[in-house]
Amino acid sequence: MRSILQTVKTTEKEPRKQSEPAEVTALVEVEQKSPQDYIVELVKKARAASNKLATLSTAVKDQALTAMAEGLEARTDELLAANEKDLEAFEKAKGDIAMADRLKLTPDRIKEMADGIRQIVKLPDPLGESPKMWRRPNGMQVGKIRVPIGVIGIIYESRPNVTADSAALCLKSGNVCVLRGGSEAIHSNQAIAAILSEAAEKAGVPAGAITFVERTEREVAHALLKQDKYVDLIIPRGGDALMKTVTEQSTIPVIKHDKGVCHIYVDADADPAMAEKICINAKAQRPSTCNAMETLLVHQQIAKTFVPDIVRKLAEAKVEVRGCPKTCQLAPEAKPASESDFGQEFLALILAVKVVKSMEEAMAHIETYGSRHTESIITSDYTRAMRFLREVDASAVMVNASTRLNDGYQFGLGAEIGISTTRIHARGPMGLEELTCSKFIVFGSGQIRE
Amino acid sequence: MRSILQTVKTTEKEPRKQSEPAEVTALVEVEQKSPQDYIVELVKKARAASNKLATLSTAVKDQALTAMAEGLEARTDELLAANEKDLEAFEKAKGDIAMADRLKLTPDRIKEMADGIRQIVKLPDPLGESPKMWRRPNGMQVGKIRVPIGVIGIIYESRPNVTADSAALCLKSGNVCVLRGGSEAIHSNQAIAAILSEAAEKAGVPAGAITFVERTEREVAHALLKQDKYVDLIIPRGGDALMKTVTEQSTIPVIKHDKGVCHIYVDADADPAMAEKICINAKAQRPSTCNAMETLLVHQQIAKTFVPDIVRKLAEAKVEVRGCPKTCQLAPEAKPASESDFGQEFLALILAVKVVKSMEEAMAHIETYGSRHTESIITSDYTRAMRFLREVDASAVMVNASTRLNDGYQFGLGAEIGISTTRIHARGPMGLEELTCSKFIVFGSGQIRE
Repeated sequence: MRSILQTVKTTEKEPRKQSEPAEVTALVEVEQKSPQDYIVELVKKARAASNKLATLSTAVKDQALTAMAEGLEARTDELLAANEKDLEAFEKAKGDIAMADRLKLTPDRIKEMADGIRQIVKLPDPLGESPKMWRRPNGMQVGKIRVPIGVIGIIYESRPNVTADSAALCLKSGNVCVLRGGSEAIHSNQAIAAILSEAAEKAGVPAGAITFVERTEREVAHALLKQDKYVDLIIPRGGDALMKTVTEQSTIPVIKHDKGVCHIYVDADADPAMAEKICINAKAQRPSTCNAMETLLVHQQIAKTFVPDIVRKLAEAKVEVRGCPKTCQLAPEAKPASESDFGQEFLALILAVKVVKSMEEAMAHIETYGSRHTESIITSDYTRAMRFLREVDASAVMVNASTRLNDGYQFGLGAEIGISTTRIHARGPMGLEELTCSKFIVFGSGQIRE
Repeated sequence: MRSILQTVKTTEKEPRKQSEPAEVTALVEVEQKSPQDYIVELVKKARAASNKLATLSTAVKDQALTAMAEGLEARTDELLAANEKDLEAFEKAKGDIAMADRLKLTPDRIKEMADGIRQIVKLPDPLGESPKMWRRPNGMQVGKIRVPIGVIGIIYESRPNVTADSAALCLKSGNVCVLRGGSEAIHSNQAIAAILSEAAEKAGVPAGAITFVERTEREVAHALLKQDKYVDLIIPRGGDALMKTVTEQSTIPVIKHDKGVCHIYVDADADPAMAEKICINAKAQRPSTCNAMETLLVHQQIAKTFVPDIVRKLAEAKVEVRGCPKTCQLAPEAKPASESDFGQEFLALILAVKVVKSMEEAMAHIETYGSRHTESIITSDYTRAMRFLREVDASAVMVNASTRLNDGYQFGLGAEIGISTTRIHARGPMGLEELTCSKFIVFGSGQIRE
């Protein structure tokens, strides 16, 4: 269908036939432009909305969010019908059950999306707060106040709930979002975005504040990544290929939500029961997430008893263990690990296990193989705990806690748009505050530069 | 000379002749590699230094900074000799006096550089501070702690003092710097970097912490901009062409220090004497800076008396006024402005002046023509002051103060690496804190994800 639409070159609006649904006609209209022209028009509108949205009152934004949540629930049938189109196309094309499940909407999942938006209503507006204010010797009062980043492009894959989450978080933080979802979820995303946008506009949010990129061609995404004049930030959420494209193509600042190769180091002085509980949780509670453990490092002093125990428990939890020679020697359930198992993001019930001589070896291993996402030490030794916290470099470094806790909700940020692996602006879970920047304000009384 | 060196393809070390100075031999050696190989080797060393530098004690860093300042002063003659080479080459090639002056080192300027470094010694170490720490319902303690960004590439033009400033600010904040200065200052920058690096290493700073890019070919800079695996941030400091290249080429996050098209809006209710003092200061105190005023907007109610006065005073300060028709009517000294004068960064004793009907018109003008750098309102009306502060979007928005005060020292940050015009991470003057990022730390006692 896409290629047919792309051949339509006329700029004239085609008369809508009685039998044709409105959305198809709309699609024909937008497809007539070049990817570049199409995107420039979208982001110009987005930028224009940004100036109005930035100064909208909290009350109006919260009313809009409430209406957005209600809209999703009220139009559940419409969403399910749109989703059905995506599912049919997806199953015909590939038939990957796990992916299809991520793509699928159900009345419960739609309610969850709506409830997610209602949670954001309850969170405090991050704008306008001035965490710092001080007086200079010349008498001028200087402050740093939170303002929206501006226009944020979000490029994401498969899960349609990202559309609702992103739109709601951006709206609450005063940012215009330009949403570009994957082609496999185009009908679902488009339906969600249309409902949200309509509800928001009725409540007084400027048109364009929730901008959805309806065209799924690669050229459109590439054109979006070059709009540094109108877009202030790109947040990619997805796999390696997406990260690579965005990094290479974007002239706009990027905050990546990249992969997690997370380790747990079980120290010589770990409480074995605590270590076991945490390791099982970090690996098996939800293995497909970026904060799940991928490699377990065990100090040799504790390995003799701990490794056989944990490998057995992991096997009971259906985890395939790929161990270093020492691990395989200690636990018959373990398969021999290959070099490539260390540093790999399995995102599945597979775990690499290695016995190490010292904490130094563990930290060196993490530095070499880790992705600086989440690292945890299990120990009852104070000095080593503090050293691990200080010296290990990751978005979150933990003592005696599961890596699965590196999350905006778990950390108390109230919500999250994802976990940043970039080293500027925000690192780790990004909540509403992390979706803002600042401006300096100066209350003067005639001060000049001497 | 460069092209000759580039033809040297052998990887064998050439024997140094008795008559050849050491630095030339060194240059020949590095020139043998491809730009890509040369840069990858440099940034790998830089990354390795980063891990050590991040955990260096404040005492060692401060001793290193002190030694760096002493080194510059002690080796003044060497610096002047290197600078002389740049000046000779520059004068032969172009003879632009203003640029030559920016390039020139004198014993006083060298002392200023050293004193600048000593100032940084006195500032508190920004690392390790945890501005936030909280307890979650499950009992785990979560904190956000300041850590270095990592490896920062700084790409800059002409002024050699940027080499010393950047190296010192990065060192204090635990960041490795990769310095890439302009070819016109290559000998000066190289000499400064060598002195700083030597002094720092003697004091215990890891080799590579102050990395200088000795090769000035364009391809080397381009190769640097692609090293997202090893470099965490690029800070470009220079003109439009540099900003454009960096924006287009870099796969590394960029914080731009871009141009300033700054306005002052003199409101109907301004105190004329205060407005005059501020306007003269903002335009004439140092017109070549990014926070100097480029356009003056005057409310029509006050224009009849204020415009003739200010234009006369500006003329006395040798400022050329380019006015709108109304301005020219009120002040005979003003020349008619062309449309392109509005929104232009003159960086000279030239000022565009426009009479506006209302604050709304002034704010709309700023939105259209401003570069979101520094904007100031002069008024005694509380409501308009607060509205201007809230609605105008810029890195600094001021009431009754000169735009020239948007500066790290003036704002009390202690130092600055420049004024960011990017809307993420840091906006406005960037001091030591703005050269850091954060990591989450978690003190747990066995917590898992439920």
